[in-house]
Amino acid sequence: MTRTIVESRSGAAIIGFDQPFCVIGERINPTGRKALAAELEAGDFSTVERDALEQVACGATMLDVNAGVVYNSNPNPNETEPPLMRAMISLVQGLVDVPLCIDSSVPAALEAGLETAHGRPLVNSVTGEEERLERVLPLVAKYNVPVVAISNDDTGISEDPDVRFAVARKIVQRAADFGIPAHDIVVDPLMMPVGAMATAGLQVFALVRRLREELGVNTTCGASNVSFGLPNRHAINAAFLPMAIAAGMTSAIMNPVRPAEMMAVRAANLLMNNDPHGAAWIRANRAPGAEEAGTGRRREGRRRRG
Amino acid sequence: MTRTIVESRSGAAIIGFDQPFCVIGERINPTGRKALAAELEAGDFSTVERDALEQVACGATMLDVNAGVVYNSNPNPNETEPPLMRAMISLVQGLVDVPLCIDSSVPAALEAGLETAHGRPLVNSVTGEEERLERVLPLVAKYNVPVVAISNDDTGISEDPDVRFAVARKIVQRAADFGIPAHDIVVDPLMMPVGAMATAGLQVFALVRRLREELGVNTTCGASNVSFGLPNRHAINAAFLPMAIAAGMTSAIMNPVRPAEMMAVRAANLLMNNDPHGAAWIRANRAPGAEEAGTGRRREGRRRRG
Repeated sequence: MTRTIVESRSGAAIIGFDQPFCVIGERINPTGRKALAAELEAGDFSTVERDALEQVACGATMLDVNAGVVYNSNPNPNETEPPLMRAMISLVQGLVDVPLCIDSSVPAALEAGLETAHGRPLVNSVTGEEERLERVLPLVAKYNVPVVAISNDDTGISEDPDVRFAVARKIVQRAADFGIPAHDIVVDPLMMPVGAMATAGLQVFALVRRLREELGVNTTCGASNVSFGLPNRHAINAAFLPMAIAAGMTSAIMNPVRPAEMMAVRAANLLMNNDPHGAAWIRANRAPGAEEAGTGRRREGRRRRG
Repeated sequence: MTRTIVESRSGAAIIGFDQPFCVIGERINPTGRKALAAELEAGDFSTVERDALEQVACGATMLDVNAGVVYNSNPNPNETEPPLMRAMISLVQGLVDVPLCIDSSVPAALEAGLETAHGRPLVNSVTGEEERLERVLPLVAKYNVPVVAISNDDTGISEDPDVRFAVARKIVQRAADFGIPAHDIVVDPLMMPVGAMATAGLQVFALVRRLREELGVNTTCGASNVSFGLPNRHAINAAFLPMAIAAGMTSAIMNPVRPAEMMAVRAANLLMNNDPHGAAWIRANRAPGAEEAGTGRRREGRRRRG
């Protein structure tokens, strides 16, 4: 049984076929968040702090941390990202005790994150591009951590799912050359917006099944991408997640503060028999105001012990 | 490609793998509805009328009609059900132009419904019990209509999905002896409450896939049974339906007036590429007040033409 172990300072989580779905909180990311980007350049981490606490309070299993801000004062991410990643990781793991996902396209920022993070973080990401394989896989091997493998390569993102499967297989094979086992690779088969490609959902369901059965790997995706450009996106996401989980997807990078999506994930855990005695479902739905959880700003997180 | 054709007076619907999910409205059923049972005994059809219009307004593809009321004045359903079924079918098809599902365990009531219904109704149901096979299949053959086949037999409802599959296969084979093709059989693999049997969801997803791949039949179930006894049932149902649809289920007997479940079905249609150009999704979500549709009592239905 495929199990990807991720660890924080004192805790651990397992990504696996027989585990509750791993919710990787996506909020700590300045991409497309101008106010957050400006805050980070000014050294203001209050939004990061709030996003960390709130996402964990709403049920995130892990938190993604992305320092990909383009400073007005210095447009070179190779210089700005590594120290910012270090600072953000330190801050977040000082607030909450969940495993982190170090998210960058700058290898030096990944390494800065790996040096700083407690436990066993997840690296996000490597692709099938030659230069990325050569830069990222040695880091993954050196730190003995799992990695997200995105199934595009030097030719771009293929619309053909067979090509995306082949890219994933190539990454798994290349990783093996570095001593990285398949159970430490979490493949992102690339969720296209269903509004742009009508078969995108079917493609991903079929790919997830193949990746699980043929490569034995865990899978993830940027879940909200499925609904891009369409009305009532949360309802689409909330249907997509259970369908992907039923196909075998084991994690997603998503917004745990959205109650529709989180409720769908919790119900899917129950229906997949990954919620023993329905305890998590009952807890989430019996607590006073539980159905409203995540709609407001919450200040309490799972604080680090000791 | 398996296609089960059902027809009303002037319309038709297709149950099939490449079709939008067939929502069979469950409301017109006095079982467990004491007020409705009392109304029907008193000859008051106002609730039936409202349930017909409201369910079609909320998006039901078909309507189930069940006349299984036990009269205080006459406890023999063999005497009371056939005339009541006739009256209810006449009323409903006078109000709305959707195919009907004639739901009874009394063969004479099924025949009364078949004599009365316009078009090509769905018979609900036959089981693997010998006496039911012998009584119902000749009716199905005589009227050349499709039938729901529930996978229990004289030994009861098995908790073993392999046994339920075998019962379904037996019904398909017996139906063939009567000249009834597999594409006119809609198998109900029996959805157990997940609160009573933790593997019930996984069982049904696997059974639906097998029934589709090995027997080539359409499938249905009483969807809300999955959440029996648990809190926040609508959220469980709303996750279950997309998962069942992803596994290949093509219809369900459900309450279309519940917006959470109907939104989940519409989103699943979109994600399965059974909503060309996302037109139905956009229509349901762009209309003023669309997201509230079904939360209140609505008086307008798709009225019969001509």
